[in-house]
Amino acid sequence: MNGIRTLLGLGLLVSTRSRSLHRAGIPHQDRVCLASSGWGTVTPKRSVSGPTTMAGKPIKYLGAEEAQAIDEELFTEYSFSVDQLMELAGLSCATAIARTYSLQSFTKKMPSLLVVCGPGNNGGDGLVCARHLQLYSCQPVHVLCRQSAFPLSSTHSSGETQAVRELLAGVFLFLQPMVIDEAYNLVVDAIFGFSFKGAVREPFNSILKILKEVTIPIASVDIPSGWDVEQGNPDGIRPDMLISLTAPKKSAHFFQGRYHFLGGRFVPRALEKKYGLNLPEYPGTDCVKQLL
Amino acid sequence: MNGIRTLLGLGLLVSTRSRSLHRAGIPHQDRVCLASSGWGTVTPKRSVSGPTTMAGKPIKYLGAEEAQAIDEELFTEYSFSVDQLMELAGLSCATAIARTYSLQSFTKKMPSLLVVCGPGNNGGDGLVCARHLQLYSCQPVHVLCRQSAFPLSSTHSSGETQAVRELLAGVFLFLQPMVIDEAYNLVVDAIFGFSFKGAVREPFNSILKILKEVTIPIASVDIPSGWDVEQGNPDGIRPDMLISLTAPKKSAHFFQGRYHFLGGRFVPRALEKKYGLNLPEYPGTDCVKQLL
Repeated sequence: MNGIRTLLGLGLLVSTRSRSLHRAGIPHQDRVCLASSGWGTVTPKRSVSGPTTMAGKPIKYLGAEEAQAIDEELFTEYSFSVDQLMELAGLSCATAIARTYSLQSFTKKMPSLLVVCGPGNNGGDGLVCARHLQLYSCQPVHVLCRQSAFPLSSTHSSGETQAVRELLAGVFLFLQPMVIDEAYNLVVDAIFGFSFKGAVREPFNSILKILKEVTIPIASVDIPSGWDVEQGNPDGIRPDMLISLTAPKKSAHFFQGRYHFLGGRFVPRALEKKYGLNLPEYPGTDCVKQLL
Repeated sequence: MNGIRTLLGLGLLVSTRSRSLHRAGIPHQDRVCLASSGWGTVTPKRSVSGPTTMAGKPIKYLGAEEAQAIDEELFTEYSFSVDQLMELAGLSCATAIARTYSLQSFTKKMPSLLVVCGPGNNGGDGLVCARHLQLYSCQPVHVLCRQSAFPLSSTHSSGETQAVRELLAGVFLFLQPMVIDEAYNLVVDAIFGFSFKGAVREPFNSILKILKEVTIPIASVDIPSGWDVEQGNPDGIRPDMLISLTAPKKSAHFFQGRYHFLGGRFVPRALEKKYGLNLPEYPGTDCVKQLL
């Protein structure tokens, strides 16, 4: 309990600016059958090819190795910094969430949003997302992350964030699915991204168990946390929204929620062509493209 | 001539990630009367108070010292990195330009856009802007900047950029206003920002002389290059568009172009309140707000 308290009382994760630290390849595993759950029978929702572009070509869903290779090229060949990509990724997530879940649809009083951030770049995307959501909504956005300072400014976007952190430090000890359902309108899941592999360790395991039981919508950043990048996770969380970054990953075929967005509009045309991504056209100057 | 050739044959500017290096205060100067020009008599276009917010309060136009102080607080108090702010600033500029000057309105064949980048953060904003414009339009965007590598990836957004740089190295020796008018549809002016003061040195002086004579639209990033942040410049360039970043600067009262946007949607509410900025509400999740 004390371990959970320490880790959740501003509990989670966050840190390191280096995406490369989280790019270990995910071994191919046998495909598992997805069990039935409260969200209905979980089988791949779309055909293997998924949505198509205007030209009729199917959007490519990336495997672990390709996702890793593309990520590396963005840094090495195209000289992007982590801050740049994280800013655009987090902005995409906030945009998709704010456009889909209108403030008017939120039935709970403040605080309205809980952003759960992991220890790597997925958590960083979540922090940036939280900062932009705060600017969009003027509502408190509670961020659950490790107390240690994160190099990005995401947690500093308003003076209240620190107060909220301190509040959560005491409150999260008692946090249960029902409490989250009562207090928040939506959870942003930014715990693990495409580099996740293997078993989930504490405190993340407990967090994910809680998130599996909440009934308010969950919006997952890039990949539902705890899912295998290719195979998904039949026992994992069931987000209502998925915001795929750069390109969808193969596990997105198992996504059963209502809203699927593509974000991270930073892929150079040459890189898109090299990997045959067949990305759809983003509308106008939008930073997100709704796929579902 | 050789100096110009060296500097313009991929001529200009760009470098340093440190915004703080460019924050020297600009001394107050006597207000000068603006002379008549080809763009009409240049007098302040709006009242001193400028546009107002929804609540009826006038948007604050910043003097040099306040602009500098706010910039510093964004880095020190709110822990933003240069990459983060530059990404959002450049994205704002590209968004404003792409929405205002539609591809259909461009009459010249490719190459269609020339982005001229200065040696500091204004130039960095321009490079980010160029990268996003390239993604929006699929058109070549030519970037005029110093050959030395810029830490941001803006110039690497497509393989063609390097080729264009090499092309420009030879071509710019002969570049005259008429050539720019013939070759391009629009110039993005990202040479100097709010930290500019004093006399303009070469090669920038020659560049600005050329830009004063072009007839295609110029879109200026934050401040028209060569203008005093408060007093403007009666003999300076006359952009058609101004994208004020963070908040408009006092010199924006002298802006005579058709389009004025506010961009850089990253100002924390607490900072806005502290400085009484009275920023207007951005529409929805937009990263720009049109003021004129």
